[in-house]
Amino acid sequence: MNILILGGNGFIGSHLTEALRTEHNVTVFDRSPNRFVQECEGVEYIYGDFNNASELKRCLKGKDIVYHLLSTTVPLTANNDPVHDVQSNLIGTINLLDAVSESNVSRFIYTSSGGTVYGNPEYVPIDEKHPCNPIGSYGIIKLTIEKYIKMYSQKNNFTYLIARPSNPYGPRQNFKGDQGLISNYLYKGLIKGEFVIWGDGSAIRDYIYINDLVDFLKIAGLSSKSGIFNVGSGKGRSIKEIIEFLNEIIEEHPVLKYAEKNRYFVEEVVLNIEFVEEEFQWSPKISMKEGLKLHSTWMKSLDIKE
Amino acid sequence: MNILILGGNGFIGSHLTEALRTEHNVTVFDRSPNRFVQECEGVEYIYGDFNNASELKRCLKGKDIVYHLLSTTVPLTANNDPVHDVQSNLIGTINLLDAVSESNVSRFIYTSSGGTVYGNPEYVPIDEKHPCNPIGSYGIIKLTIEKYIKMYSQKNNFTYLIARPSNPYGPRQNFKGDQGLISNYLYKGLIKGEFVIWGDGSAIRDYIYINDLVDFLKIAGLSSKSGIFNVGSGKGRSIKEIIEFLNEIIEEHPVLKYAEKNRYFVEEVVLNIEFVEEEFQWSPKISMKEGLKLHSTWMKSLDIKE
Repeated sequence: MNILILGGNGFIGSHLTEALRTEHNVTVFDRSPNRFVQECEGVEYIYGDFNNASELKRCLKGKDIVYHLLSTTVPLTANNDPVHDVQSNLIGTINLLDAVSESNVSRFIYTSSGGTVYGNPEYVPIDEKHPCNPIGSYGIIKLTIEKYIKMYSQKNNFTYLIARPSNPYGPRQNFKGDQGLISNYLYKGLIKGEFVIWGDGSAIRDYIYINDLVDFLKIAGLSSKSGIFNVGSGKGRSIKEIIEFLNEIIEEHPVLKYAEKNRYFVEEVVLNIEFVEEEFQWSPKISMKEGLKLHSTWMKSLDIKE
Repeated sequence: MNILILGGNGFIGSHLTEALRTEHNVTVFDRSPNRFVQECEGVEYIYGDFNNASELKRCLKGKDIVYHLLSTTVPLTANNDPVHDVQSNLIGTINLLDAVSESNVSRFIYTSSGGTVYGNPEYVPIDEKHPCNPIGSYGIIKLTIEKYIKMYSQKNNFTYLIARPSNPYGPRQNFKGDQGLISNYLYKGLIKGEFVIWGDGSAIRDYIYINDLVDFLKIAGLSSKSGIFNVGSGKGRSIKEIIEFLNEIIEEHPVLKYAEKNRYFVEEVVLNIEFVEEEFQWSPKISMKEGLKLHSTWMKSLDIKE
């Protein structure tokens, strides 16, 4: 198969590229190289601007499967400038869908967001039929993109799969940004820094190890099933619990600082993954403790000083 | 109260302006005058571009209530250019919400779309808890705007009400465009033209007479209840049934032509209006036959030749 991965140098994308490249012709389209790994042998890399429609068209030539993993924003900061969120993510994706419709692509995979599209849950674990009431711009745009993908798929000749991942973690996750509790905690430990807990540490999230998520995305791309699927561990862990787990593994612990959570902070997200497990005979394999060790080992290997 | 009506010269807006102007200070912002009625005495009219943020800011000065009735697209054609739909309607509304947040406006009313945000219904009549699966761009954008309104309302000092009207009809509705079955049928009768039925005429819609809708919008503006409300008749009528009703009233009948319905055509929309009736002690008052007569009488008064 000829596969295009938009955002193939990101955290999820770089792992997916490695998982697919031995059996398929993979092209990566991204803004810049991955910070932690070299380009893979046998993979074509194209660097450009997602919002350049003619560049995208060129990339799509001869492709069978497209993975759209790109996002220009993160949940915490998207609300500062929703117009930018709309212009870069939504309009960019509509232009992509127009180009895909004119191409021979038969399969379109999108990573939405299980952590933001549902908003404050009415019940947990959250299944795919749960109402979508996102409380911030990031989730609103992800949801809007989902609906355009479905619309374009119905009028054109490609099937779609929308993955709503929970919080992925593992090697190559950014640790200095506004996303990634685990990587940030490990980083702050290594530099003996201050780790900020939003709220009292009771907020619950569903964490999935990167390889488990990538295993699913690989299966999803090669399937022809259309639909929306939660992709998580199905288990809820509080911030406190994660910190306890991590403290058992690492020697250097960061200083904890409590800060008021912002209005876009959802108290609890646990995904119900029964649907995806049934439909794809896929289940997450790596336990939380195992995943945290792997993540921590990678962080240590970076020899971070600051 | 100082009230700004964005789109106050449109079909719904012009009636709302008349309904509010005797008791309140009304300012109308629109692209152009209404085609059928003169400017109302005592109302301030500002003509401009909805996407001009600084113009909007000036209009909001000193206002208590804002009605946002503007749309730059209609359901049938919005899919031809979704990027335009996003840029003009969604980004325009986000800019408006930014400006409203910086103003002293305490109340924001938006007319969404009961006919498109739900998509193909899983059950009828459709209540507000029905999943929103719009199948075309018009409904997708209306839904996305709803979510941004809620988000901005929660972080700022204004309450919001989102009305999801069914199909309004009555005097001043455009009769030459791509929207408005009843007005178009009456028009085609008067000019002895051809009336196109999409599908076999069995498609069901919920029609509400313009004065009933405007009565609700008036009550909604002066209330402080936040939420999303269906506003319809609660009754489903097929295209065939409407044509039978109309043929009893009018003498000149258009020639019927059947055309294949397009992919964005939903088979049935009937709104459940129990929630709005309970919360606002409002109910539609004008019967279908009465409304059709009023609409037809107005059309005849125009002395249309072509």
